[in-house]
Amino acid sequence: MAVFSGPLQALIDELGRLPGIGPKSAQRITFHLLKVAPEDALRLSEAIVAVKERITLCTRCFNVAEGGLCAVCLDERRDGTKLCVVEDPRDIASVEKTGEYSGRYHVLQGALNPIEGIGPEQLRVRELLVRVEDESVTEVILCTNPNLEGETTAMYLARLLGPMGLTVTRIASGLPVGGDLEYADELTLGRALEGRRVIEA
Amino acid sequence: MAVFSGPLQALIDELGRLPGIGPKSAQRITFHLLKVAPEDALRLSEAIVAVKERITLCTRCFNVAEGGLCAVCLDERRDGTKLCVVEDPRDIASVEKTGEYSGRYHVLQGALNPIEGIGPEQLRVRELLVRVEDESVTEVILCTNPNLEGETTAMYLARLLGPMGLTVTRIASGLPVGGDLEYADELTLGRALEGRRVIEA
Repeated sequence: MAVFSGPLQALIDELGRLPGIGPKSAQRITFHLLKVAPEDALRLSEAIVAVKERITLCTRCFNVAEGGLCAVCLDERRDGTKLCVVEDPRDIASVEKTGEYSGRYHVLQGALNPIEGIGPEQLRVRELLVRVEDESVTEVILCTNPNLEGETTAMYLARLLGPMGLTVTRIASGLPVGGDLEYADELTLGRALEGRRVIEA
Repeated sequence: MAVFSGPLQALIDELGRLPGIGPKSAQRITFHLLKVAPEDALRLSEAIVAVKERITLCTRCFNVAEGGLCAVCLDERRDGTKLCVVEDPRDIASVEKTGEYSGRYHVLQGALNPIEGIGPEQLRVRELLVRVEDESVTEVILCTNPNLEGETTAMYLARLLGPMGLTVTRIASGLPVGGDLEYADELTLGRALEGRRVIEA
């Protein structure tokens, strides 16, 4: 009995394919599911099917949606002059949580990564340019990740959008709030210095 | 849009109930499942249902089984005179991997934990005593975890089994192979000293 019997091992294998779940976690979750009430396990199983059947991408901004437009695009109170460009639908949730933004979004569905073969054609760049032209956008906020791929993508988009006569901004890099100078890496601290602001007293 | 739309949030919530999966992991897995091929997601969903429908507990040793007896109990080549007592079916896989054991098992389905209200009646202790009497067991190996609950359970079982005229053994505690004296805690090192063995040269 080197492995577990059929259905158990099958579930361990399937769970092990998920991101961030190693063989031990997969085993732990499998035995947890074995113990819970059948209706609880069934609910998880059905939730997976429901997501695959009902969730689509918004036809306008490529956020997740339930057919047609997403909740943000459907919301008439949103400021249509601002467009926040993110890599992933999850990033929208992060921006929303700040409560600092009331404009619309555009999800690129990734970032430029030549090594992995991801160029502008693999991202929703063309759709972004069409939206900027068609909708009354006055500011595009480049909210891609502050890592190599995200920065490259932001620079690339800034060059494309620059000549179109609108404000193109990039989110600030710097020390995280509650952080500590001692533990900041020199790149981040350098950016924080570079992006310093006048304190109005 | 403080949360994600219905089916997405439902799946995030369901995944978040699994052991070792926090809200961020649940979100990450949900968006991963959104991206994979529908048949891959369906396979996971069906694997969960299959485990709940087909996996039962062995009627003899309480290991996981597919109806009736488990693979170990069905295996006639197993040494029926030895009985290894473990807390959880997963522990059987750990013991099997060592290749050092060819006897049978008995799964307690937990360990004594008075604070959580787990006494001998909540565990498969009565069934263990019946097996020891009915089957031709000559050695019981107490293979519960070397923590407070596991040690208490082992001591309790040793007292019950002692008068029944068979050998009762406990797995050794000591330094892990490949370990380092410097990093061993004093309790473990103390046990290692206590359990020292004569080297036969």
